[in-house]
Amino acid sequence: MRDLKRAPIAAFIALILLMVASPAHAEDGYRLWLRYERLPAPARERYKAAATEIVMESNAQLAQSAAGELQRGLSGLLAMPVPLRTKVGRDGAIVGRIQSAVGVGSEGFAIRTTLIAGHRATVISANDERGLLYGSFALLRLIQTHRPIDRLAITDRPKLELRMLDHWDNLDRTVERGYAGQSLWDWQTLPQVKDPRYTDYARANASIGINGVVLNNVNASAEILTAPYLRKVRALADQFRPWGVHVYLSARFSAPMDIGGLKTADPLDPAVRDWWKAKADEIYRLIPDFGGFLVKANSEGSPGPQDYGRSHADGANMLAEALASHDGIVLWRAFVYSAAKNDRAKQAYDEFKPLDGRFAGNVIVQVKNGPIDFQPREPFHPLFGRMRRTEVAMEVQLTREYLGQSSGIAFLAPMWSEVLDADTCSPRCATPVRATIKAMVGVSNVGSDRNWTGNNFNQANWYAFGRLAWNPAATPSGIAEEWTRMTWGNDPRLIGRVVVIMLRSREATVDIMAPLGLAHQMATDHHYGPSPWVCDLTQPSWNPCYYSRADARGIGFDRTASGSDAAGQYKPKIGDCFANLKCVPDDYLLWFHHVPWTYRMRSGRSLWNELVARYDRGVGEVEAAQRQWDQLRPYVDAQRHIAVAASLNRQRIEAKWWRDASIAYWQSLSGLPLPSGHAPPAHPLKWYQAIHFDTVPGYLAPGAGHQFSCVPPPGGPPCAL
Amino acid sequence: MRDLKRAPIAAFIALILLMVASPAHAEDGYRLWLRYERLPAPARERYKAAATEIVMESNAQLAQSAAGELQRGLSGLLAMPVPLRTKVGRDGAIVGRIQSAVGVGSEGFAIRTTLIAGHRATVISANDERGLLYGSFALLRLIQTHRPIDRLAITDRPKLELRMLDHWDNLDRTVERGYAGQSLWDWQTLPQVKDPRYTDYARANASIGINGVVLNNVNASAEILTAPYLRKVRALADQFRPWGVHVYLSARFSAPMDIGGLKTADPLDPAVRDWWKAKADEIYRLIPDFGGFLVKANSEGSPGPQDYGRSHADGANMLAEALASHDGIVLWRAFVYSAAKNDRAKQAYDEFKPLDGRFAGNVIVQVKNGPIDFQPREPFHPLFGRMRRTEVAMEVQLTREYLGQSSGIAFLAPMWSEVLDADTCSPRCATPVRATIKAMVGVSNVGSDRNWTGNNFNQANWYAFGRLAWNPAATPSGIAEEWTRMTWGNDPRLIGRVVVIMLRSREATVDIMAPLGLAHQMATDHHYGPSPWVCDLTQPSWNPCYYSRADARGIGFDRTASGSDAAGQYKPKIGDCFANLKCVPDDYLLWFHHVPWTYRMRSGRSLWNELVARYDRGVGEVEAAQRQWDQLRPYVDAQRHIAVAASLNRQRIEAKWWRDASIAYWQSLSGLPLPSGHAPPAHPLKWYQAIHFDTVPGYLAPGAGHQFSCVPPPGGPPCAL
Repeated sequence: MRDLKRAPIAAFIALILLMVASPAHAEDGYRLWLRYERLPAPARERYKAAATEIVMESNAQLAQSAAGELQRGLSGLLAMPVPLRTKVGRDGAIVGRIQSAVGVGSEGFAIRTTLIAGHRATVISANDERGLLYGSFALLRLIQTHRPIDRLAITDRPKLELRMLDHWDNLDRTVERGYAGQSLWDWQTLPQVKDPRYTDYARANASIGINGVVLNNVNASAEILTAPYLRKVRALADQFRPWGVHVYLSARFSAPMDIGGLKTADPLDPAVRDWWKAKADEIYRLIPDFGGFLVKANSEGSPGPQDYGRSHADGANMLAEALASHDGIVLWRAFVYSAAKNDRAKQAYDEFKPLDGRFAGNVIVQVKNGPIDFQPREPFHPLFGRMRRTEVAMEVQLTREYLGQSSGIAFLAPMWSEVLDADTCSPRCATPVRATIKAMVGVSNVGSDRNWTGNNFNQANWYAFGRLAWNPAATPSGIAEEWTRMTWGNDPRLIGRVVVIMLRSREATVDIMAPLGLAHQMATDHHYGPSPWVCDLTQPSWNPCYYSRADARGIGFDRTASGSDAAGQYKPKIGDCFANLKCVPDDYLLWFHHVPWTYRMRSGRSLWNELVARYDRGVGEVEAAQRQWDQLRPYVDAQRHIAVAASLNRQRIEAKWWRDASIAYWQSLSGLPLPSGHAPPAHPLKWYQAIHFDTVPGYLAPGAGHQFSCVPPPGGPPCAL
Repeated sequence: MRDLKRAPIAAFIALILLMVASPAHAEDGYRLWLRYERLPAPARERYKAAATEIVMESNAQLAQSAAGELQRGLSGLLAMPVPLRTKVGRDGAIVGRIQSAVGVGSEGFAIRTTLIAGHRATVISANDERGLLYGSFALLRLIQTHRPIDRLAITDRPKLELRMLDHWDNLDRTVERGYAGQSLWDWQTLPQVKDPRYTDYARANASIGINGVVLNNVNASAEILTAPYLRKVRALADQFRPWGVHVYLSARFSAPMDIGGLKTADPLDPAVRDWWKAKADEIYRLIPDFGGFLVKANSEGSPGPQDYGRSHADGANMLAEALASHDGIVLWRAFVYSAAKNDRAKQAYDEFKPLDGRFAGNVIVQVKNGPIDFQPREPFHPLFGRMRRTEVAMEVQLTREYLGQSSGIAFLAPMWSEVLDADTCSPRCATPVRATIKAMVGVSNVGSDRNWTGNNFNQANWYAFGRLAWNPAATPSGIAEEWTRMTWGNDPRLIGRVVVIMLRSREATVDIMAPLGLAHQMATDHHYGPSPWVCDLTQPSWNPCYYSRADARGIGFDRTASGSDAAGQYKPKIGDCFANLKCVPDDYLLWFHHVPWTYRMRSGRSLWNELVARYDRGVGEVEAAQRQWDQLRPYVDAQRHIAVAASLNRQRIEAKWWRDASIAYWQSLSGLPLPSGHAPPAHPLKWYQAIHFDTVPGYLAPGAGHQFSCVPPPGGPPCAL
């Protein structure tokens, strides 16, 4: 009788469990690595005893954000409500406490298992509320990645002071080089409409330690500095503040003329200096913790101090002076080049090295990872380690302008680590780039797309950037595994495959687009797809042919002493190796040397044969990733599995296009036969050359409006590859 | 002892129930009116007995979609799994059956409570699978709106054959007059990436009976007709097909030249005719159920048959011939006007009336609801009822180009019903416009924004359009209540307030922007905000002053016999009234008459005083809506409540701007004092005249690119109202 009576209850429970088991959220990628999905039962039981209540001892704003996040995260992971308490009342408390914490500095934290009032507790302690926030995300990460938390004694602190995302977002919500929809910032409805997504964006940044955001494009409109827009900026700053994210703005150097009514923007003009001071004061009245200005000046047509015969230092220091009393900073970009000079790769160094020591204390010179422009592979920028009396930031690009844009997988941590780990030999060897920088700035890949970054795997680049900016010595494999566990799940059969796909993906992209030290072989303007043959653009360094220097005899850019001597900008121990054919790594061969097609590589193959093999290796890697991903179907929710599979399929199609078009063109120069076992391009060269795209996301045709047409090449349908 | 043993089970159940009770979905508006939230307990119990299993007797694709939707909907509403069965096995079955169903025609359905094999069942029957789909959504709607379903005997069928959304979406994902983000169609990743959102879009359309979609802007790029894009179009058609949504394309009349290499697009040229035939054949090979072409020709610069001395009928019939063998149709827009003519309101009639009877059988002439262009209020278009030998569609605009764009609430069903119900007296009186049309076409307000339409209340216009296209005699209040119940909830305290806000909102918009028959008083190009003073544009009918004809003596457009005689285009019983000051409704006064500022209105007030009162009434309505909405906080989830409140706040700010700017300008002409009790404008007229916006969503500056600046007027901050 009792059993019979219980039967309906059991059925009821089973029914409810069934409903609970069905995913509460569409797996559309919105939750990023903060999914907080219920842990599998065994793991859940393990953690439950150590997470029974949350006691946040600080009322500071960021500490309260931390408490809320702990509750959200633990309640999801453990599938039970975890209450907030005012003091420890039982075993398993998680305690947040601001106290003098040795060795973690500002922003750092310690997490320790201890006893409080006789109860087992996990205490997150920090010197400041920001440390509590980061420590709370760190504890959640341990659980999300199935690490033990029963005997913790962890300390951690950021290695770089400034960890910043830079949005190339325009006021009309277009995003330059954006492949994830529109800008997140809906300027039209700000400041009235406070989209909850702004909060989720800040949360995601906080979870990986990002503490600053530049809202607008470096190709800036001065309008962002007008009073109406500053009120909109304030609304965003207010929403980001609880998550420790400071707002910065790109400042157009000519703003005093554009919106201030002045006749000049000369940085030594008193009226101009006064204008910027008044503007800074106005901003800080609205946003007391405003971060400062990012400036692209005298670069690609931007106005700047050189328009008035002044130096970059003059320009930066003027803005620094306006911000100094508010503790604001200036990030001044070193990305400069002009038509006149002989080697674009040398120009930033030539312009900025002589200014070392002349920048104000609150100026950071922002240097791209390589000397050209975010190519799939570049050697590290020669300015790293050579600006000993100047604060330097490294700028990297999360959005994949040159690495496949919206398609498939290209995990960029290996690229960034390659540069961060590079030895500058400055002032002495064993000084990696990461030891020479104060900040990392990442050009954002975030947009209005539901999954934030256009496809699910691009989220990994956002995550990896934050983790590397926190600790530039972190390993790509460690980051990939962490992200995979949090984003896709902890099943070891899944983790292994996903991590391998990720770690190989950047090298595959190099092979597909620019192997052996090639660079800048993409199509003009929109940068989508291959165009190695382009050679007729007015500015020499806009042409792919400028970089390949390819002709019937050979290929590569001679940057040794017999050429541009860009290698000479590095410390001799580094530069001499780059300049020496016997020493230069294959990966940088054509970056530094012009060699004949028949040049014998270390592999024993001719350069020509090696080049073809690299392209095919790249295509093969994408095909391998597709096969691996197919096998992951049992371990991944259908929605994301299908989405990634479709994106990989696009990447394969585009890889083949790059491979075929590049080989067809190089072969038209070299005249050499394809090595055996390598298929000829699917179409003749002319077919590839006739392909023209005009409506490619992320490219804003200046003055051209929106209506274009695609010109189909002879011999087949081109635009939809 | 037994009780004690049961205690943990009870606690466990309670805990699980707690979790189930927490909302499974963020209330971000994505689910539209298909939320399928768990019904409150009493209602749920009522319905459970009538929805125990689903038996779909047809394997047709749309029938299977219907079965899936019934399962999704019922499982959500009843908070229990409702199984699919192959035959009726218990009381409470819901059965879908294709059988000869009397009186419902094609697409219609019957829903009846009956007995099957001794079991109580609800049978949805239809002559075709499409009817089953619509009937299934109708049954779900009954439950969603808490209607009884235990003794059903319903039949329903669409009154119009074609119910179509028209997207003004460009291939670069911009949307002309779009205020909800980008285009849903991600042309870049199609056909590889099949976004699940395409399916949800088609589901939403199916739920309200929309059976056709034009994918691209009427200002069309011919590129959509190239082979690569047609493959992308096919991918969308494949995803829409299970939901009964046919794909149509806007065809650029010059396509044979743009992409076909011909020297002419003359519709009587055999090569041109052959090109279109071949193109149609190519499309139907890919998309066998392709709907046809929509064409904007010889309108606002579009190419068309008149470029070759041919008529609209010549052009339409050429395309109709190409499509006829495939059962495709041509929708040919009657929206035409040119600089030369005297009254823009007369031009469509003048051009198209003489062509009545000359269009092929598969041509539908698509006529806007009013003679100008989707203004807040226009009299019905004089072509309705006057093209007795031509199929006519009514085109309305869901996107609120002229009714507040992205801000606040403007429920448009009252506007559309006003026209649908208008008596054409053609061929005899008591012939409403709705009896003269074969189709309704709505310019879409859907974009990539998470909530589809930019704000939650704009969803109501999508819903209302579908319901009116299904039954043009449906009442706005009935539609508003239905939508409110499905979207916001069934609490009577909520329904009453929301419906009243909605029903008043369009009249408020008229009062705010264009009271008493005014029209076209908005700012140039982007159409955001007021600019009644603009009078210097090259084409006369682009100027607000053209429509107001306002000067020191009076205001209004004389369209009687002493003026343009546009009233004469209506049947005499209608037109004579419009032309007669004693008969014309106040709402159309200034549309048809130029009257002095001191003109005595029926209210006893002078026109001037009445005008001021109308503006203030409009602002007051928005403020009232804000107050009502505030009181709804207890009944609405926080996320959507906050979002709507913010949007209403924007609408209030903009309403005040319209009111103040308009009154300031009219007063500068009339020189009359404001009636007592009405506040003067907040700023002098010059302040309003100096406001310039350049980055307004939905306006694509031709050839102007993206970078503009806002020119702040003297006396205050303008751009952020």
